[in-house]
Amino acid sequence: MVSHDTISTPDVRDRGFQRLLYVDDAWEKFVEALDTVSLSVEDVSISASLINRVLAEDIVSPISIPPFARAAMDGYAVKAEDTFGASNTNPKKLEIVGNVDIGDVPSVVVVSGTAVKITTGAPIPEGANAVVMVEDTEKQDSYISILAPVTPGKNLAQQGEDVKKGDVVLRKGTILRPADLALLKAIGLQKISVIRQPKIGVLSTGDELVDNATELSPAKIIDSNRIMLKAQILEDGGIPVDYGIARDDPDEIKQRLEQALHECDAVLVSGGTSVGPKDFLPRIIEELGKPGLIVHGVAIGPGRPVALGVINKKPIILLPGYPVAAFLNYELFAFPLLKLLQSVFYSKRPRDKIKARLNRRVSSKPGQRDFIRVQLSEEGQNLIASVITRRGAGVLTSLTRADALLIVPEDVEGIEEGTEVELELVRYF
Amino acid sequence: MVSHDTISTPDVRDRGFQRLLYVDDAWEKFVEALDTVSLSVEDVSISASLINRVLAEDIVSPISIPPFARAAMDGYAVKAEDTFGASNTNPKKLEIVGNVDIGDVPSVVVVSGTAVKITTGAPIPEGANAVVMVEDTEKQDSYISILAPVTPGKNLAQQGEDVKKGDVVLRKGTILRPADLALLKAIGLQKISVIRQPKIGVLSTGDELVDNATELSPAKIIDSNRIMLKAQILEDGGIPVDYGIARDDPDEIKQRLEQALHECDAVLVSGGTSVGPKDFLPRIIEELGKPGLIVHGVAIGPGRPVALGVINKKPIILLPGYPVAAFLNYELFAFPLLKLLQSVFYSKRPRDKIKARLNRRVSSKPGQRDFIRVQLSEEGQNLIASVITRRGAGVLTSLTRADALLIVPEDVEGIEEGTEVELELVRYF
Repeated sequence: MVSHDTISTPDVRDRGFQRLLYVDDAWEKFVEALDTVSLSVEDVSISASLINRVLAEDIVSPISIPPFARAAMDGYAVKAEDTFGASNTNPKKLEIVGNVDIGDVPSVVVVSGTAVKITTGAPIPEGANAVVMVEDTEKQDSYISILAPVTPGKNLAQQGEDVKKGDVVLRKGTILRPADLALLKAIGLQKISVIRQPKIGVLSTGDELVDNATELSPAKIIDSNRIMLKAQILEDGGIPVDYGIARDDPDEIKQRLEQALHECDAVLVSGGTSVGPKDFLPRIIEELGKPGLIVHGVAIGPGRPVALGVINKKPIILLPGYPVAAFLNYELFAFPLLKLLQSVFYSKRPRDKIKARLNRRVSSKPGQRDFIRVQLSEEGQNLIASVITRRGAGVLTSLTRADALLIVPEDVEGIEEGTEVELELVRYF
Repeated sequence: MVSHDTISTPDVRDRGFQRLLYVDDAWEKFVEALDTVSLSVEDVSISASLINRVLAEDIVSPISIPPFARAAMDGYAVKAEDTFGASNTNPKKLEIVGNVDIGDVPSVVVVSGTAVKITTGAPIPEGANAVVMVEDTEKQDSYISILAPVTPGKNLAQQGEDVKKGDVVLRKGTILRPADLALLKAIGLQKISVIRQPKIGVLSTGDELVDNATELSPAKIIDSNRIMLKAQILEDGGIPVDYGIARDDPDEIKQRLEQALHECDAVLVSGGTSVGPKDFLPRIIEELGKPGLIVHGVAIGPGRPVALGVINKKPIILLPGYPVAAFLNYELFAFPLLKLLQSVFYSKRPRDKIKARLNRRVSSKPGQRDFIRVQLSEEGQNLIASVITRRGAGVLTSLTRADALLIVPEDVEGIEEGTEVELELVRYF
């Protein structure tokens, strides 16, 4: 039923799957088949709600920040040379010829023998090259005694210290964070080009699924995957589009998928991905278009039946119906897909990790990557990782109760109790 | 000008500030003065957009999940006792009396000597207590040969394995994440009570500030703090309300603050918090109401002039005008305030930390907590933390270029080059 000619590498056998791909190999094949995907660009006004949007252009600053040299201390703007040798016993006396406050344009010029009173943040008047702190001075009428010397450049911020006119301050592909927005604002931009937010279709399949408690009957369960996936998509900067629940009917599924692929940039389907009699999805993907099914079966636990496809350049991810499996496969494949669609520039940043001691032995299937949910607690100076034991792919509370993930690599069979392990703090835990 | 009778502890002197409080002491005083703050509750329909909202009630499940025992494998539902002793050489023969698919209500009962064909996820028919995997069977007409024994409970998920009817599945004060929404949906809820989102007023003060490049003139700079603070508030689940830029005029500032305090749950002001001639803010807070100014001056670098006040039970935070100082003080005081206002239940989770080697010596002021911005890079197996050297409180690019924060505690004077340090991955880096 399912073409496996593209599936190779690890010699891990599983019911119905000839071979399972390793996570990294699966992702690589998927990206290769996607070829070039990129969304269009839109010009938008700068506002706080642009957090998590992705820059579509390098940003070159049209101005310097600060735009003028400014005082970093309250005190007196002077020529540094006038203060050389000054001390408590040998004060240097300068005439106060003016006052510059924050927001003022200095009209006075500092010449040798003179000083200008200045406030932190105010522009340095012409002629001055340093600021003497008010604590190092003594005022007498219109004169100031300097009690300590300053070097040129002391106690002031040079023009362009933060940003120089013409600097590239943010790169194309940057995910905008609050401080980035502040920088865009500070350099005087009003509009920027960002990548359009990807529309991601979400469809559940299964005769057992209903949408609400009112429709529940024996043998039925409420579909909880769509609301979870839509929330994940929202957090990752996509726009979720809900295609509801399709019965286990190939024609119905096919029709909804065609609509979703037409209207969206990518589609996530949950359920029907395995190799049972009602697992139509992999075959439907083959029928919908080229290149079709790219990966079916990945060596992870839970979540092996995941499948990745491409239809006329649009990516489609088939997630297993069990909620924990759907969640993890979203993290592994849909999250990076959303970044890829938005052309996010990946600086290779290490992920958030933390170390803790295992409270019990963990066994793991060799040849697959296992994702063990743990709770964290403190025991004296030690951090303890308690393995959540009810951890089937269907046990949603194993996710809601978890603080972190222990990822057991493909070449590890088990980890002993008491071992210090490195955990990944997944965003959603 | 400023009452310091509430300020004590560390013997750190700074221009104009008598004494600076340690961060933790400042926060404690602030919380004490706030007394009880809590926002009202609202009933909302469950939807994906509830991510990051805070539960206002314990959630008790009205149903069990799964609502019925279900098969965890494709195979045959049997009485386990019928399979005891089964092997390849000694198969046990059972009559196939029916078939249960996903979504079906089983009409058949399994009695001794019979088996029912079953699909993963389908309800276990009455009488059966285990599932034999299809791989361990051989079919002959209407009979099945069992080739391996199963124990009771094997290959099935018990009713209530995930959630038992009556279980408290989520606690009041929980910040809702995608998997939590899935759980609420799965147990059949349509509406839940959540805490109202706090409205947070944002005001900038300063004669040097303008809002746009078109208004720029010599000695003026564009206010970038409001857009940054509004983005931070949005990310933290608050609703930012913009009160614009106030001139350095006590009456104007006072009037805007009165309006903001009337309309919002808390107010953030940036600028005018220090002890210079135009730093009106601390005095205005004292005039606006009781208890007034609680903290003025905290032993951190950058950001010492921060002040915390309470006016008629509404919190107000005075942030220094320099953007890096404003950003960090938001993280230290406004972020936990937003959580406090929403009655977030704090499970004491360790923050995301990472270790790296310092690329150069870092000096730090003893008696204050220093926040050093660093960039991370890999050098072979080592992670290197490169200190961003242009790191004044006004240097916004020290934030936009940073990957992490090195936090130097109050009792440390400096850290040598090459030392392995622990870094905090702040959300926004």
